[in-house]
Amino acid sequence: MSFPPLQIVSGERHLTLRYDVIEADVTRVREIVESTGFFHPPEVDVAVELVEERLRRGDASGYFFAFVELEGMAIGYSCYGPIACTATSYDVYWIAVHRDEQKNGIGRWLMTLTEQLIRSREGRRIYVETSGRPDYLPTRSFYERCEYVKAAELPEFYGDGDSKVIYLKVL
Amino acid sequence: MSFPPLQIVSGERHLTLRYDVIEADVTRVREIVESTGFFHPPEVDVAVELVEERLRRGDASGYFFAFVELEGMAIGYSCYGPIACTATSYDVYWIAVHRDEQKNGIGRWLMTLTEQLIRSREGRRIYVETSGRPDYLPTRSFYERCEYVKAAELPEFYGDGDSKVIYLKVL
Repeated sequence: MSFPPLQIVSGERHLTLRYDVIEADVTRVREIVESTGFFHPPEVDVAVELVEERLRRGDASGYFFAFVELEGMAIGYSCYGPIACTATSYDVYWIAVHRDEQKNGIGRWLMTLTEQLIRSREGRRIYVETSGRPDYLPTRSFYERCEYVKAAELPEFYGDGDSKVIYLKVL
Repeated sequence: MSFPPLQIVSGERHLTLRYDVIEADVTRVREIVESTGFFHPPEVDVAVELVEERLRRGDASGYFFAFVELEGMAIGYSCYGPIACTATSYDVYWIAVHRDEQKNGIGRWLMTLTEQLIRSREGRRIYVETSGRPDYLPTRSFYERCEYVKAAELPEFYGDGDSKVIYLKVL
């Protein structure tokens, strides 16, 4: 499998990729997701649960991960997987970069990498879901910059005045 | 918790309800779902996996069940659960009645029961998803008779020419 060039992140920093999930990720994913300041505790718990489910069940969990590491420490990750009962549809469940490492293009790069990983698994449609709340505008803008298109919006899905927006990218 | 009257199913047949999940349901759910003739093998496998996940993890699985039994044999069931990170949204993942017992109103009754169970858990929005394919018209008509309203449709979601239709009922 080929990867995008590492030097997309500037400077002398040496970033590495990791696809297997280790016990330490339970703690580190929590730290990364919490650091973003975007997620409520129950949402953070869900992010961690996907790591635990992956550790428990391996590929059968349906959750696949890509970690970006800086000097052996994960600073961002994505979690994706095939959508059951679909031919070639995938979900990107999580993509997050630690707050200290944001604004360096790592998120964009991680998304491109994740799309390549999905494509290598014969995935052709990628769905991502997020909130329609005003404070999630940066998240929606991120997906739009990554060329995801709004496919549907479900009003009040998450709660009062809190819709779910479903984005789609056809590979 | 109060239930709809059992006599909604006519005749002298004595139907009972069961909410706990037992090992035998792994086999019986497969039989029920297969009998409908609606689902491909991978879909049947998913139905069975939810039973297994429930057996493994209990309430933590997020999957709750209601079985309708006739003389100790399950003839239909529903599987539902809260949608993670939402305030009051629920999914009805499966609702199926064995082919030999269809056309007796059991499906409608099971849906009403499931809605009551969801309401008793403070659920206020119920989502069900199905295919937009022509052969799924009976399924969509069923949801519409149960007063579910189409909230969104995602073209090609399941495969070529096979959209996902998302129905919603606000309780």
